Amino acid sequence: MSAVADLRRTVAELHRELTRYELVIWTAGNVSARVPGQDLMVIKPSGVSYDELTPERMVVTDLHGNLVEGDYAPSSDTAAHAYVYRHMPEVGGVVHTHSPYATAWAARGEPIPCVLTMIADEFGGEIPVGPFALIGDDSIGRGIVETLSASRSKAVLMRNHGPFTVGKDARAAVKAAVMLEDVARTVHFAHQLGKPIPIEQHHVDSLYERYQNVYGQ
Amino acid sequence: MSAVADLRRTVAELHRELTRYELVIWTAGNVSARVPGQDLMVIKPSGVSYDELTPERMVVTDLHGNLVEGDYAPSSDTAAHAYVYRHMPEVGGVVHTHSPYATAWAARGEPIPCVLTMIADEFGGEIPVGPFALIGDDSIGRGIVETLSASRSKAVLMRNHGPFTVGKDARAAVKAAVMLEDVARTVHFAHQLGKPIPIEQHHVDSLYERYQNVYGQ
Amino acid sequence: MSAVADLRRTVAELHRELTRYELVIWTAGNVSARVPGQDLMVIKPSGVSYDELTPERMVVTDLHGNLVEGDYAPSSDTAAHAYVYRHMPEVGGVVHTHSPYATAWAARGEPIPCVLTMIADEFGGEIPVGPFALIGDDSIGRGIVETLSASRSKAVLMRNHGPFTVGKDARAAVKAAVMLEDVARTVHFAHQLGKPIPIEQHHVDSLYERYQNVYGQ
Amino acid sequence: MSAVADLRRTVAELHRELTRYELVIWTAGNVSARVPGQDLMVIKPSGVSYDELTPERMVVTDLHGNLVEGDYAPSSDTAAHAYVYRHMPEVGGVVHTHSPYATAWAARGEPIPCVLTMIADEFGGEIPVGPFALIGDDSIGRGIVETLSASRSKAVLMRNHGPFTVGKDARAAVKAAVMLEDVARTVHFAHQLGKPIPIEQHHVDSLYERYQNVYGQ
Repeated sequence: MSAVADLRRTVAELHRELTRYELVIWTAGNVSARVPGQDLMVIKPSGVSYDELTPERMVVTDLHGNLVEGDYAPSSDTAAHAYVYRHMPEVGGVVHTHSPYATAWAARGEPIPCVLTMIADEFGGEIPVGPFALIGDDSIGRGIVETLSASRSKAVLMRNHGPFTVGKDARAAVKAAVMLEDVARTVHFAHQLGKPIPIEQHHVDSLYERYQNVYGQ
Repeated sequence: MSAVADLRRTVAELHRELTRYELVIWTAGNVSARVPGQDLMVIKPSGVSYDELTPERMVVTDLHGNLVEGDYAPSSDTAAHAYVYRHMPEVGGVVHTHSPYATAWAARGEPIPCVLTMIADEFGGEIPVGPFALIGDDSIGRGIVETLSASRSKAVLMRNHGPFTVGKDARAAVKAAVMLEDVARTVHFAHQLGKPIPIEQHHVDSLYERYQNVYGQ
Repeated sequence: MSAVADLRRTVAELHRELTRYELVIWTAGNVSARVPGQDLMVIKPSGVSYDELTPERMVVTDLHGNLVEGDYAPSSDTAAHAYVYRHMPEVGGVVHTHSPYATAWAARGEPIPCVLTMIADEFGGEIPVGPFALIGDDSIGRGIVETLSASRSKAVLMRNHGPFTVGKDARAAVKAAVMLEDVARTVHFAHQLGKPIPIEQHHVDSLYERYQNVYGQ
Repeated sequence: MSAVADLRRTVAELHRELTRYELVIWTAGNVSARVPGQDLMVIKPSGVSYDELTPERMVVTDLHGNLVEGDYAPSSDTAAHAYVYRHMPEVGGVVHTHSPYATAWAARGEPIPCVLTMIADEFGGEIPVGPFALIGDDSIGRGIVETLSASRSKAVLMRNHGPFTVGKDARAAVKAAVMLEDVARTVHFAHQLGKPIPIEQHHVDSLYERYQNVYGQ
């Protein structure tokens, strides 16, 4: 069970990136990680504040959101995370926030256009909007999966709600959440005083290609 | 007198959430808590900076704002808090800030429309505007109580002044103040570049119902 | 010389409020204090970063800006501070920043209208704009003094430049600088989505009267 | 090799100014320094987060970006930094960020007009836009050098990408990056509610002249 212990620590620590970059307030955002090779995930407990998130307080559920291990109820967004893991086997981490600039695009139901090299690098094109969906069944999860499946983007703006991001692991999903809010904000600013200049599609493609394959160590 | 001692500590600590989320500057905001079962409240002293707020420096007054215990004069907003406790027996905590986005809506006298699931969850509909009222008598308290009584919202935007929030205890009122500024900001952003999409009333109702009854531990 | 030693410490510490509230970047802002009963002032050294401001590094000048005591050259804004002390005997502290929202109003040459109770409380009416003035002689100081003399405001927005605030001591001037940026921001937000509602002049007067005479300990 | 050891420490520490002033997120920005008298530069490693930047992890390359010393691959922006050092012998430091307000101007391809004394002081006029350029060859470096060569500005806004700044050393380039974002933001705010008042050219010239020659210790 040492993979789970490691992920409890990783997931607890990654929540600090959400507060550091001011993507969340109070308890309103969560990170999860798939347990590799098992039908399990590690996720934030519901309604527990970020200061009090320890590895021990993380919750382990199966991929239908049923509690497997932990002293707390899992995040109220667990069903959406679980749906993503069931339907996107390449995804190892999911993040949900209500980060303000991304959520403002989501409130208008407008995708974020690809007008920055950073968007091309990380998201490979515009960042799409998912449907309005109520919490309580698989509606949110299905909206995330259907929207992401039709895009290169690792981020989806769920309408009137907020963003979900995915990644090969929890750290990659958190990175996508951080970069999403950053570009949502910069493109917001750009639009406030006029129109950003589009980037030609072939440039978007070559930026995306390079960043996915060359960047980093 | 141990309930009072506990509340002195709680109220002192909760002020840190106001500075953490940048809802207040200098000394311009305050938290109070009703002492359960007694006609007393614990509130911030007037004009004391947040760094210097210790449990000992908190002030105890009766529910007409008269000093009962403490070395400092109570907050200049004490009369408003006291009025709320006298007229809303279900309220155990009151918070007042001048958080910038909420106050901008208040300056225009415009309610914040319910265009985010987070607003439906926490506030149950649009966040209403209260009347312009001068400090010095019961005008502010009466404006708060009359406005909140006509709404499911725990927050009211006092015109040209700033928000007041209430809760079953001081922590819940602080949570409402934090979430209010967050949604005031996101909806502000959404309006800057167009129009947010409304959420249908029956969805607002079901989100509010669920969040009030299911969320958290 | 113990009054000077005290003021060195006070002035060094007050600069931390400028960074805490993000009113300044790098070395671009300064606090000074008049030495009571002497024709001296204590001011920030020029081009020294806020992390390195110790009481020992503060500079003492006469009220024409000539170095009296200290190992560093005084702030490049010393002449403006000195002019204010020479011409406004009731002023004991002066603060200069380029805080972004206040400076944006200054860049347009527009006063901040009195549409918040906090503006009425602290500034007694609209916050006025001073003339464009070059550094190097008494132009800035004269612009500050002439503008403040025609107003109840403790803050002036120097055109295309940034704000100066004054107070009975350095702490009061810093408080005014903090509140100025807060209201400059909130009124900016209010204007972005429409028009704030004006506050009637007799209400402004009674708010100002009360705050100046009753608030605090 | 002690100059290199010093610069490793300096460059590592200067990255903290990028996070302090929120000019960068995750790993998306970098500082470099020329090694005086040698055809070498010290630069951030690629894809390493700011918390983990130690002097030892800095990378030394030649002025064509080839690794000379270090355990990590150099920043993916190394080619651009190296090009600047090869073609601008007076430059001792280069900084690249995607700071949000500056990048918003870059996304629209609009220079920042010189409407603040701080812009005249530090940049000597409007802050120019460089061409759209793909990463992978000398296009970015050439765009920076050509744009800066036609201006007094130490900052260039690379179109759809973000700013680069230069200075006589790494600290001066970081200072320019910090001031750039500050003025990009303030002028953004000023434009949101109207038009800033221009500063006459002869005033710009005299402000620039004075600041470059008189300011600081």
